[in-house]
Amino acid sequence: MKANTLPHVVILGAGFGGLTAAKKLKNAPVRITLIDRNNYHLFQPLLYQVAIAALVPSQVAYPVRTIFRDQKNLAFQMGNVNEIDLDARYIKMDGSVIAYDYLILAAGGRMNFFGVESVEKNALYIKDLKSALRTRNHLLSMFERASHEADADKRRAMLTFAIVGGGPTGVEVAGALAELISHVMKKEYPELDVREARVVLFEAGNALIASYPDELRKATLKLLKKKNVDVMFGAKLTDFNGQRISLGDGMQIETNTLIWTAGVQAAEVVESLEAARAGSGRVRTGATLQLPNHPEVYVIGDAAYLENGNGQPLPMLSTVAIQEGKVAADNIRHAIKGQTQHPFHYKDPGLLATIGRNAAVARIWGLSFSGFIAWLIWVGLHIYRIVGFRNRLVVLINWAWDYFFYDNQVRLITRE
Amino acid sequence: MKANTLPHVVILGAGFGGLTAAKKLKNAPVRITLIDRNNYHLFQPLLYQVAIAALVPSQVAYPVRTIFRDQKNLAFQMGNVNEIDLDARYIKMDGSVIAYDYLILAAGGRMNFFGVESVEKNALYIKDLKSALRTRNHLLSMFERASHEADADKRRAMLTFAIVGGGPTGVEVAGALAELISHVMKKEYPELDVREARVVLFEAGNALIASYPDELRKATLKLLKKKNVDVMFGAKLTDFNGQRISLGDGMQIETNTLIWTAGVQAAEVVESLEAARAGSGRVRTGATLQLPNHPEVYVIGDAAYLENGNGQPLPMLSTVAIQEGKVAADNIRHAIKGQTQHPFHYKDPGLLATIGRNAAVARIWGLSFSGFIAWLIWVGLHIYRIVGFRNRLVVLINWAWDYFFYDNQVRLITRE
Repeated sequence: MKANTLPHVVILGAGFGGLTAAKKLKNAPVRITLIDRNNYHLFQPLLYQVAIAALVPSQVAYPVRTIFRDQKNLAFQMGNVNEIDLDARYIKMDGSVIAYDYLILAAGGRMNFFGVESVEKNALYIKDLKSALRTRNHLLSMFERASHEADADKRRAMLTFAIVGGGPTGVEVAGALAELISHVMKKEYPELDVREARVVLFEAGNALIASYPDELRKATLKLLKKKNVDVMFGAKLTDFNGQRISLGDGMQIETNTLIWTAGVQAAEVVESLEAARAGSGRVRTGATLQLPNHPEVYVIGDAAYLENGNGQPLPMLSTVAIQEGKVAADNIRHAIKGQTQHPFHYKDPGLLATIGRNAAVARIWGLSFSGFIAWLIWVGLHIYRIVGFRNRLVVLINWAWDYFFYDNQVRLITRE
Repeated sequence: MKANTLPHVVILGAGFGGLTAAKKLKNAPVRITLIDRNNYHLFQPLLYQVAIAALVPSQVAYPVRTIFRDQKNLAFQMGNVNEIDLDARYIKMDGSVIAYDYLILAAGGRMNFFGVESVEKNALYIKDLKSALRTRNHLLSMFERASHEADADKRRAMLTFAIVGGGPTGVEVAGALAELISHVMKKEYPELDVREARVVLFEAGNALIASYPDELRKATLKLLKKKNVDVMFGAKLTDFNGQRISLGDGMQIETNTLIWTAGVQAAEVVESLEAARAGSGRVRTGATLQLPNHPEVYVIGDAAYLENGNGQPLPMLSTVAIQEGKVAADNIRHAIKGQTQHPFHYKDPGLLATIGRNAAVARIWGLSFSGFIAWLIWVGLHIYRIVGFRNRLVVLINWAWDYFFYDNQVRLITRE
């Protein structure tokens, strides 16, 4: 068969889901066009480390073309997809029309501020390289500014760091930030009294990492407190003007920093799609990941909504996206051969969250771990997972260095 | 003597000159305030490697506070200095007033476009992290855009890379860019015919690296030609509108990319200084590096103008700045003790310029080298010079990897 008569698979998004599907189709009788707005795959689970200046962008981002250099049936295009025409089977990317036979929508997610406009405008968040770098620059600038601020009230506001959302990301950021202050900033800003610095984690509910077993939730709270993180439960944010947080109960906290980790919704590009929705704009797919009425379209990852056997929604996690990417690719192979489509079943590999440099909580093989052992599991797993040999090596060197010397040598404040 | 009664030395700029002066004053009976608009020292000689995606920012930038963590008599402040009052002996930084007993002006340089406004507006350059990253993002984006551009003329304009200035920087950028195209882009953009890509180096005079011995100038031209760089002599740029370069002789070249390396002038902050000037806004100092009429003010580095024994101006090079930084620090020690000031004598350590990955020209110990041996000298010297053990190690790993595998894994296009 000539290459250009092969079925054309367009994959939208080079995140975990899209990347996995593309790799799985390596030797399939298809032409693949992989599209992303960036020229790199982002290793999201470590992105928060960029925000706290522990890793640099090149350690969590990996050029897509390099990943697929040896995959002959794949072409990469960087661009913004503005339109998807399900009936005519084409997408529009920066003006050019790209027709498909099969479409895998793996467009991922974006922040959800739940309509609190002042937060959307003034809060920091950690969703892509740009927002992570903005967070890093802001955090480091606060220390620089505080170091020559004579007014004690202003100084305290600069050194108060609020994190909203008690999920795994909020817990990771709070723990890492507390350690940055107590181990690094203390040495590097001798003119500052780091006891003036404060990390506050706001959670609207009454538990951290709510989807974890109870013993791990308790362990997390204990580990965070040990690192001097203040945790406030039942805290409902109503306003943040860049200088002051207002809570539902009337309480106010003076701070220049709010990092929002409390919600993700489906990417903008799926918004206009004619399809049934669940919460957070996620597209309801069939069990085979296909769009009802459009069996040639598969939706996977954060943009997709699927439930597990117990009627619980699958979490917006890379592990889900990866497994869905494999099934979508397999199902396209089945479709080409005229075979039946297989339904998706999520195999839960466990749960993991770090709290700073030497502590974590983990739930694997039916067992709960917390503290240093969980952290070692976390380190090993993430080093193993991160794409590419060189990245792995450099990440390892950095981490080893940081761990033994409590040192981060990449605290750059770059300008926008 | 109590610490706050010690003479206060303010150093403006954490480049090579300021950094050296600050280190040299480590155990002197002074209080030092080192000020820079960035929180890092930039290793300028390797900055062009960030622009061609061979190194990442954290490999050429090093936080100032980390460098001086153990120097108790130094405080660092990040900020913009807007005003220097020589008579009242204070500077203003972002509104706050900082008085000094001694001032070392090591504010460095900025680009000089010689009044060609269209070039200033549309050209790329490589002077700080921001401009280097902008250059990198632009270069990589040109390949991405060309990869799905059907119009051959537009594609050729995207793949034509013009560099203006035949000095060491222009030669280095041209050589490195030509290699990026022939070794990396060829593999990573199979859909592109890299023979459509072209690197053109424009020099207004009739020789490259004019300050070098003749045999090295010839060797440089030969090495560049071998790497398929077109060199145009006597080329006087009159306009660049972002799409097309116009030359003095009426010739026009269609290109989306112009990298300007043809001129540096003294930093803006010394512009308002009441002092005699040489070309490029540089401040004429006495032989002891002091300002006439203001013996407590030393001017060093790119912002200073001094001649060697033969009446030739000293070049704007890091080697000059470093040697001047040492002498300025020594002279402050002399002044405090009431001893006489020493004049500055530049010891020329030689000349070095690379042309891509495995070729360079060097003039050291009265000998001329070119080709691979000169490149090894260049590599060794730069690895040795770059600040900090970890940076050195990571740079070494990157380079070794790149050299053996012709691979750069950090080709990220980041958004502004």
